[in-house]
Amino acid sequence: MRPAGRAPDQLRPVRITRGFTIHAEGSVLIEFGNTRVLCTASVEEKVPPHRRGSGEGWVTAEYGMLPRATHTRGDREAARGKQSGRTQEIQRLIGRSLRAVFDLKKLGERTITLDCDVLQADGGTRTAAITGAFVAAQDAVNKLMASGKLGASPVLGPVAAISVGIVEGTPLLDLEYVEDVACDTDMNVVMTGAGHYVEVQGTAEGVAFTRAEMDELLRLAEKGITELVGLQQKALAA
Amino acid sequence: MRPAGRAPDQLRPVRITRGFTIHAEGSVLIEFGNTRVLCTASVEEKVPPHRRGSGEGWVTAEYGMLPRATHTRGDREAARGKQSGRTQEIQRLIGRSLRAVFDLKKLGERTITLDCDVLQADGGTRTAAITGAFVAAQDAVNKLMASGKLGASPVLGPVAAISVGIVEGTPLLDLEYVEDVACDTDMNVVMTGAGHYVEVQGTAEGVAFTRAEMDELLRLAEKGITELVGLQQKALAA
Amino acid sequence: MRPAGRAPDQLRPVRITRGFTIHAEGSVLIEFGNTRVLCTASVEEKVPPHRRGSGEGWVTAEYGMLPRATHTRGDREAARGKQSGRTQEIQRLIGRSLRAVFDLKKLGERTITLDCDVLQADGGTRTAAITGAFVAAQDAVNKLMASGKLGASPVLGPVAAISVGIVEGTPLLDLEYVEDVACDTDMNVVMTGAGHYVEVQGTAEGVAFTRAEMDELLRLAEKGITELVGLQQKALAA
Amino acid sequence: MRPAGRAPDQLRPVRITRGFTIHAEGSVLIEFGNTRVLCTASVEEKVPPHRRGSGEGWVTAEYGMLPRATHTRGDREAARGKQSGRTQEIQRLIGRSLRAVFDLKKLGERTITLDCDVLQADGGTRTAAITGAFVAAQDAVNKLMASGKLGASPVLGPVAAISVGIVEGTPLLDLEYVEDVACDTDMNVVMTGAGHYVEVQGTAEGVAFTRAEMDELLRLAEKGITELVGLQQKALAA
Amino acid sequence: MRPAGRAPDQLRPVRITRGFTIHAEGSVLIEFGNTRVLCTASVEEKVPPHRRGSGEGWVTAEYGMLPRATHTRGDREAARGKQSGRTQEIQRLIGRSLRAVFDLKKLGERTITLDCDVLQADGGTRTAAITGAFVAAQDAVNKLMASGKLGASPVLGPVAAISVGIVEGTPLLDLEYVEDVACDTDMNVVMTGAGHYVEVQGTAEGVAFTRAEMDELLRLAEKGITELVGLQQKALAA
Amino acid sequence: MRPAGRAPDQLRPVRITRGFTIHAEGSVLIEFGNTRVLCTASVEEKVPPHRRGSGEGWVTAEYGMLPRATHTRGDREAARGKQSGRTQEIQRLIGRSLRAVFDLKKLGERTITLDCDVLQADGGTRTAAITGAFVAAQDAVNKLMASGKLGASPVLGPVAAISVGIVEGTPLLDLEYVEDVACDTDMNVVMTGAGHYVEVQGTAEGVAFTRAEMDELLRLAEKGITELVGLQQKALAA
Repeated sequence: MRPAGRAPDQLRPVRITRGFTIHAEGSVLIEFGNTRVLCTASVEEKVPPHRRGSGEGWVTAEYGMLPRATHTRGDREAARGKQSGRTQEIQRLIGRSLRAVFDLKKLGERTITLDCDVLQADGGTRTAAITGAFVAAQDAVNKLMASGKLGASPVLGPVAAISVGIVEGTPLLDLEYVEDVACDTDMNVVMTGAGHYVEVQGTAEGVAFTRAEMDELLRLAEKGITELVGLQQKALAA
Repeated sequence: MRPAGRAPDQLRPVRITRGFTIHAEGSVLIEFGNTRVLCTASVEEKVPPHRRGSGEGWVTAEYGMLPRATHTRGDREAARGKQSGRTQEIQRLIGRSLRAVFDLKKLGERTITLDCDVLQADGGTRTAAITGAFVAAQDAVNKLMASGKLGASPVLGPVAAISVGIVEGTPLLDLEYVEDVACDTDMNVVMTGAGHYVEVQGTAEGVAFTRAEMDELLRLAEKGITELVGLQQKALAA
Repeated sequence: MRPAGRAPDQLRPVRITRGFTIHAEGSVLIEFGNTRVLCTASVEEKVPPHRRGSGEGWVTAEYGMLPRATHTRGDREAARGKQSGRTQEIQRLIGRSLRAVFDLKKLGERTITLDCDVLQADGGTRTAAITGAFVAAQDAVNKLMASGKLGASPVLGPVAAISVGIVEGTPLLDLEYVEDVACDTDMNVVMTGAGHYVEVQGTAEGVAFTRAEMDELLRLAEKGITELVGLQQKALAA
Repeated sequence: MRPAGRAPDQLRPVRITRGFTIHAEGSVLIEFGNTRVLCTASVEEKVPPHRRGSGEGWVTAEYGMLPRATHTRGDREAARGKQSGRTQEIQRLIGRSLRAVFDLKKLGERTITLDCDVLQADGGTRTAAITGAFVAAQDAVNKLMASGKLGASPVLGPVAAISVGIVEGTPLLDLEYVEDVACDTDMNVVMTGAGHYVEVQGTAEGVAFTRAEMDELLRLAEKGITELVGLQQKALAA
Repeated sequence: MRPAGRAPDQLRPVRITRGFTIHAEGSVLIEFGNTRVLCTASVEEKVPPHRRGSGEGWVTAEYGMLPRATHTRGDREAARGKQSGRTQEIQRLIGRSLRAVFDLKKLGERTITLDCDVLQADGGTRTAAITGAFVAAQDAVNKLMASGKLGASPVLGPVAAISVGIVEGTPLLDLEYVEDVACDTDMNVVMTGAGHYVEVQGTAEGVAFTRAEMDELLRLAEKGITELVGLQQKALAA
Repeated sequence: MRPAGRAPDQLRPVRITRGFTIHAEGSVLIEFGNTRVLCTASVEEKVPPHRRGSGEGWVTAEYGMLPRATHTRGDREAARGKQSGRTQEIQRLIGRSLRAVFDLKKLGERTITLDCDVLQADGGTRTAAITGAFVAAQDAVNKLMASGKLGASPVLGPVAAISVGIVEGTPLLDLEYVEDVACDTDMNVVMTGAGHYVEVQGTAEGVAFTRAEMDELLRLAEKGITELVGLQQKALAA
């Protein structure tokens, strides 16, 4: 049995709160059960050096975790003087995932930076971050369009993400922390609203997994992402 | 006239939410108007090298600001690879302020770390952090006592902090961002519940200030801190 | 048509040279076409802090690229003072892949470090690194067994890796640099000799990919890895 | 009794040596008893990025302590790779204090950097640094005026600083090291020649201090600074 | 007796392989016995800030050692986040040595960077690096001339380097690792093809050395370098 | 003609002031003309990890230059976050030079750290540093012997250093800054009181130098060092 009696293919309760803070062009608190990530979208009228003069924009992401977002306190990366490999891996994943649904030419020479900061962690922080960052990015784009800075939307469609894994032989959707620790295989899947893959990252933490297991994991992920895209749209329509 | 029609000696609305996150021994969201700081207290059963074997504990603090807590996005200190002088100055101030109301011998060889992370900034983040960190620290101490790890409380009494300043010749209590930018003198005052000074840091940002002005600022600060200590007690009694 | 007239499901010529340098316990130069990676395995009779006293060993990896391994000179990471996110991501992947085929209990409290340094890059450096690192690790284990330090082998079986991708709609095995730059989807697959998955990392660099495309990519990868495992065994038997 | 039989409101012997080194535009060795700080003022015909094109100049400071300026050898910050929080706090204080007596518009787009390096420490290094830096800055300004680069002086008046503190219940002026270690309250005061406050930084190191104690400390500080300003003028007139 | 029966004034077998890797403008694997260094020359059409607009070029070098080039594994400098003092000393020496035989005016505003990476170390890595780097640099210059980017060669003549030392009272040419560890005096000599000195760096590791010993060491070095210059020319003519 | 009418083989006026600061076990201000270096010797009753348990001591050095020791202000290395290659090269040279005259077994498991900080630079800072550091080290050893911590002196004899160079064809002793900038060859020589070489570091900054020129430079250096050793003894006897 899963905690709180969840079915194997059931998401945790998801909550998406727009406008969580006041300064950012997009600011979303996303909750997957006890996992809470604050995603802000910041628009700056400049691009990094490798895009200058290209006429194209840039979408990037940074990820962080408050030191006591976790069960035991972790080091503060700013104090330690560098970001961990895990942090860099995650922020690169978020950036690629968001760029996959952006037409950078239509964005024009400006940058949208998605800051995803984990206030509370209980598994699935990177997938919650991607799902919430899309909503924040959409809000920022809407502001650019409302102000006349953008005529047509550079957003090609929604993107969302979920984790799946195999715990004691059972494929499960949306792992929470105690499941994540116990799982043999952990997979993060990022998909578009059209049901196509943006990223698939599967890792055997214990024994290697078979093709049949992978197929079942992908099926679960697709189900979960379809639901998340629906929740994103509902939140944006509110 | 101040924003929102505030009187010169009036605090912004203060809100103290205990148990804001679930993992930390103490977790407080404190709001001074639009300034919102998450203060967590983490207890660890070890002390830094310079205290080992002393039989005494340690209380320390770290401070951070989410990149988009502010009007325009600031660099992420973890990505830049170092904490700014301002950040270090503030976290040293928070640590000293909290240690001022702790009997470290009674705490025993354990450390309480206060992480103060600004989710949204509108002036006064360091004073909100000190005021909220005290509540989080008290919650952590209460847990240690409830669990029998501590027999007697190491807390000597409350501590709270407020900013005061002179804007266009008028001394004001609890500066918000637009006032902070415009002020000639900026002073942060940290006091105990007994009305004694823990820290006084006054800076002339424009013209130097007179003794008469300092006296008026100290009077305002004392009024504000008395109110904050009352609000801390009310929150802890809830 | 692919460069050098390769078929879509054909590997580049693979060469595995054992004993490429003299000091390391295992030292393998692996070549996938023009990609050349030097993989050394170093045995040290100690483990990192988080394994001490556990009775278990550790297998880890570091990755680097000589500044002029590439078409244009890249920064030297040692001179710049930090490893890029890409470097960290790759070395974490190599480490996880090798640990997947090691029984760390049987290894005993010692560490095998796999240094994978790219002398010449032409696409697929991380998959060549994993494939070569396994051979170097096996050589190091053989030495430990020959010297009587290990009674039974901690190696559970072979592991190898290959890249696959979709270029202009065609799924291809073992991308070289010009294909990698042009591809829409890039996937790195790590498998055991038994045909089970250790890692699957697929990224849509242009348009998102469909389930049918993923199935074809996984089929190609399986074919390539089967061949690579055969080449590893042949090299080890030489 | 204080060391060397000093009265509670008595400064240590102060010595100000101008032209201590030959290259800098201003070079002052200042001694407060055994505390010796070399303060140099360097003029550069450029400003930091945030001032460019403003027509205004900049005044800034850096602070350092030779490793064996102290009783026991401290780490060399250059070797450790970063400045401590204490160092940054002090150099920010020196910079703000000097800017308080500069009209940056009149300075024109040039920078004066005040390097304050402690050759020997015996308490009060930051206050000696501020007091000496003013003399060095005045020398540099005089050179700019003599060379015709500046028509009118950008210096608004003198600035000096002193520490005060409470040791075993007695308020004392100008703490030396043994007193600093033993004190309950430590306050650094920076004032202009006109007797107005530029900075007040009071810290309760042991018990919190009362308003009456603060009043007495401010009275002592004012007395000391009045004397220091006189000594600065005498040195500049020599 | 020396290892492998070498005479005191005999070089180890030297091998110079041009075109060792494919991307660099010059790429040379140089071997002094078991010491193997990969030297690449990279041409970039830009110069560092201090040369911009001067019309002159720049020649510089970077040095690295693969972690397991040595008997026991050394730290990876990129992972540790900084280059050691030894590494910096060596790369500065290589850069100065190569600049000594370049007419930077004739080179024009471009940079040649010599990357010297030690694949296998057995003493004398810095002297092998200088000797190999010259060949790589010459290849790069030849390419610039063949492509018409340079009319006249900026190379003034060859440069090569060798180590000499005193082991148990006997002066020896070209120390290998076991001799280097045992030597009392270690000297690195860099000379031009014309027999003039570019660098002489002698260090007494045990007892100080006499003038007579220095004379003998210089004689040995001159003999070795004459041979190395011959081998460079032979390799370039191949 | 040299500045101040110096003869080619004449040292600048040398001044050695012992006890320049009060805390260090040895503290020497050494002046070679306008070059002024403060050399302190600090004794600590511990050794670095690689010497622990060996029964032997360690002698090491650190070097720094105050930002405005030079004609134009240089970056503060502590602020920049790393020591330059030049700084590391020099401090390694000073450390080796001093160790050459120490019997580390006789020193016992303690460390003498020589901090050489340049207060004013006018050429020859590293040779002044070595010459002054020896006097500071001797003072520290004398204190250890006077206190009974050491029975026999670990000092084998004096060590001193001087620069020589060729300016417009003329070999000169003890280059000052304007000569250093103009020289073709620059050589630093470190010798023992017995007239043996500890270090010889010659660099052709312009044209390569001949054997005859080297011989003349060595002759000049020997003359200078003999004089410096005499001045060291005189200072120590005072």
